[in-house]
Amino acid sequence: MPNTALAFAEKNREKALEELKAFLRIPSVSTLPDHAGDVRAAAGFLADELKRIGLENVRLIETAGHPLVYGDWLHAEGKPTVLLYGHYDVQPPDPLDEWLSPPFEPVERNNNLYARGAVDDKGQLWMQVKALEALFQGSGGRLPVNVRMISEGEEEVGGEGISEYVQKHPEALKADVALVCDTEMFAPELPTLCVGLRGMIYTELEVRGAKSDLHSGMYGGAAPNPFMALAEILTGLKDADGHILIPGFYDDLQTPAAEELAAWKSLPFDEEHYRLTEVGSPELVGEKGYSVLERIWARPTLEVHGMPGGFIGAGAKTVIPAKALAKVSMRLVPNMTSAKAYELYAAYVQKLAPKGVTVETRLIHSGEPVVVSTDNPFIHKAVTAMHEIWKKDTVFVRGGGSIPIVGEFERYLKLPVILMGFGLPDDGLHAPNEKFHIPNFYRGTDSIILFLENCGA
Amino acid sequence: MPNTALAFAEKNREKALEELKAFLRIPSVSTLPDHAGDVRAAAGFLADELKRIGLENVRLIETAGHPLVYGDWLHAEGKPTVLLYGHYDVQPPDPLDEWLSPPFEPVERNNNLYARGAVDDKGQLWMQVKALEALFQGSGGRLPVNVRMISEGEEEVGGEGISEYVQKHPEALKADVALVCDTEMFAPELPTLCVGLRGMIYTELEVRGAKSDLHSGMYGGAAPNPFMALAEILTGLKDADGHILIPGFYDDLQTPAAEELAAWKSLPFDEEHYRLTEVGSPELVGEKGYSVLERIWARPTLEVHGMPGGFIGAGAKTVIPAKALAKVSMRLVPNMTSAKAYELYAAYVQKLAPKGVTVETRLIHSGEPVVVSTDNPFIHKAVTAMHEIWKKDTVFVRGGGSIPIVGEFERYLKLPVILMGFGLPDDGLHAPNEKFHIPNFYRGTDSIILFLENCGA
Repeated sequence: MPNTALAFAEKNREKALEELKAFLRIPSVSTLPDHAGDVRAAAGFLADELKRIGLENVRLIETAGHPLVYGDWLHAEGKPTVLLYGHYDVQPPDPLDEWLSPPFEPVERNNNLYARGAVDDKGQLWMQVKALEALFQGSGGRLPVNVRMISEGEEEVGGEGISEYVQKHPEALKADVALVCDTEMFAPELPTLCVGLRGMIYTELEVRGAKSDLHSGMYGGAAPNPFMALAEILTGLKDADGHILIPGFYDDLQTPAAEELAAWKSLPFDEEHYRLTEVGSPELVGEKGYSVLERIWARPTLEVHGMPGGFIGAGAKTVIPAKALAKVSMRLVPNMTSAKAYELYAAYVQKLAPKGVTVETRLIHSGEPVVVSTDNPFIHKAVTAMHEIWKKDTVFVRGGGSIPIVGEFERYLKLPVILMGFGLPDDGLHAPNEKFHIPNFYRGTDSIILFLENCGA
Repeated sequence: MPNTALAFAEKNREKALEELKAFLRIPSVSTLPDHAGDVRAAAGFLADELKRIGLENVRLIETAGHPLVYGDWLHAEGKPTVLLYGHYDVQPPDPLDEWLSPPFEPVERNNNLYARGAVDDKGQLWMQVKALEALFQGSGGRLPVNVRMISEGEEEVGGEGISEYVQKHPEALKADVALVCDTEMFAPELPTLCVGLRGMIYTELEVRGAKSDLHSGMYGGAAPNPFMALAEILTGLKDADGHILIPGFYDDLQTPAAEELAAWKSLPFDEEHYRLTEVGSPELVGEKGYSVLERIWARPTLEVHGMPGGFIGAGAKTVIPAKALAKVSMRLVPNMTSAKAYELYAAYVQKLAPKGVTVETRLIHSGEPVVVSTDNPFIHKAVTAMHEIWKKDTVFVRGGGSIPIVGEFERYLKLPVILMGFGLPDDGLHAPNEKFHIPNFYRGTDSIILFLENCGA
């Protein structure tokens, strides 16, 4: 018997892609206050579509920040309930001048769709929506499982709203398994489940010296320079090999099991190819004695994202700025906690502060590291579904990034979380020219259709 | 016999102040390309006034950048020729939100005139113009000396145009002495001549890591971070005590003579008052074993002015930037040269570069350090003029800043340079809320009138 849902999805592919483009045209940049209206517009766009395809109880759930979008269909008696999660907010598009086409005008090139949010995460969220639509259409308005779908607009800024909602209303999201589509495949054509994510703390480090900006000729040699102070603090936080120097920072770290490390070694990974095609730097960096995959999946890291303040225009201004800022984040791995990591960091920064300046740290957002258990039947259903579409065995990997909600689902809803994603390593998440490989958008939709059918079988 | 020039100046004080306000309303920020038209407008404003008061041969002299403004009056036969210098360009006004009144809307408060350029240098340039006007008006259209007046619009960006002009056309600026009004008094009511200035090199230090911006979760632990690399380089350039670590940097440095150092010790300088009222930081910083005045006048320094690149918006962006920049300048003292200092710096930066990144240095502009000889008669004429107005003996100081043209006047025109300035230590040069103490504007004008009369006596 032909699969009617897959047939519907195949017939409506181009339409689904055009809809996704319309979704991508809404610049829902959650971190920029000027875009708050766009974020809400994207939520409304999504909610309208959920109603149209047949979900019930569709509504925006207000938070202190951007709204959640909820919908459900709970008429598959005796069948499990699947909680679908994605996010409709996107990263800022800067630096704008490095985009080959405008970030919010989606363009197809070489079988890829280019736009901010194409893969992270509007495209992957749209696969979920289109999979549900195909299932409704293929079976006379019914789904093979019960479904709750929740999407957030704050994933790129820490996900506080959904975190609070999950903790306060766990019953409203009661389910048997969560399907999160916000990760990537380890390599093209290689179906992948992500079973671990790093946590993070994102901070601001502010250094103040003189009471106001001063002339560097008149005061250079007497007034403290906040940027030099920041440079001293930053080099005190991490050594040249990437080892973090904050006392106690590694104390709770749990090394991956020997068999997981062994599995990583058998993954198709060519360090030189990775350096050339993905990173593009003269050398790779990081802690000695660890492979690249260990360093990005199972070791904490510390990065500086930008250093606002002072003179950043063209040309010259001979100023000793009164203050300088560094945006500093740390990635955390099991079993570190964001609370302890921030506490150790904030205390050590004060110790590192050179004379003449005052230093203040602020926690912007945080998320806990996660390891997903693989010994549950839903992992098997996902593997089976992906094998049918991709004709290959699934590999189990971790992700270096953070999806804070995954830890919350585990902690507060007691759910196994399936991290099934269809991005590719060169998709340029958070970077200029972000893309989604169009065949992956189609086959990802098909994989979700089969996964939900497997769950209901 | 009453001094008719001084009388004219006194009678026309308020008018002179209102004219200065109009001059200050033109936002002639030389470093910002968007303001090129304003810089030219300020040049035109100045030229019109020079013609009006009676200077001859008034014209704009084109350069590769902003124009010079020239005018002369050469009919005082047998009298010396005085070359008057000032600049009509100003520093950028940022950070704008720290100004109590808009930077280009001059406002009087507490007997001060607040505006960008009030004291540096439009106000001091306008004193020269008003002194010449008073001398013309007080003596039937004649001056007591021959005068050439040249003003530039690139002092805040290195003064390349005037430097080239001085080297190519020394005969066009032939004179016996130069009067530069672009410095400050050591303390209120204390007439001051500046007899030394630091030179400088202003550079950009660019670090490139990955080929494009990367997601800090996915690549943190493998990709180089250009801001961390910059932090390492910067801390390698200068130690925590402000000692510059570039090999050979101090080799040519000439320590001030013992009597000059002794004179500085007798200046009315209270380090704690200076820290509280001028700098406003928890402590002063700088090289051990040197007084504050030695550190800012007679020791080289290295400062960071800003670090463009990366994410500097509100909130969070988890990016490892592909590149980062630092604006780094060094002040130089006799007998260092800008060429050698830059060469040593650029070479050492390459040595400090950590693995995984490439580093490029660029020289934005430079100026040579200067010591002005005090054994010439014009210094005495300046001291006498100021004594008559201020009723106090002049103190001799150095300046920590750089006025590149002073070195060029000495080198190419073989002129003694009188640095007679009327700013105050708390005037906020290059900072928000720059001001000029209005009585100093008036008494400065009077001092210049008497100096020129003394030169012609």
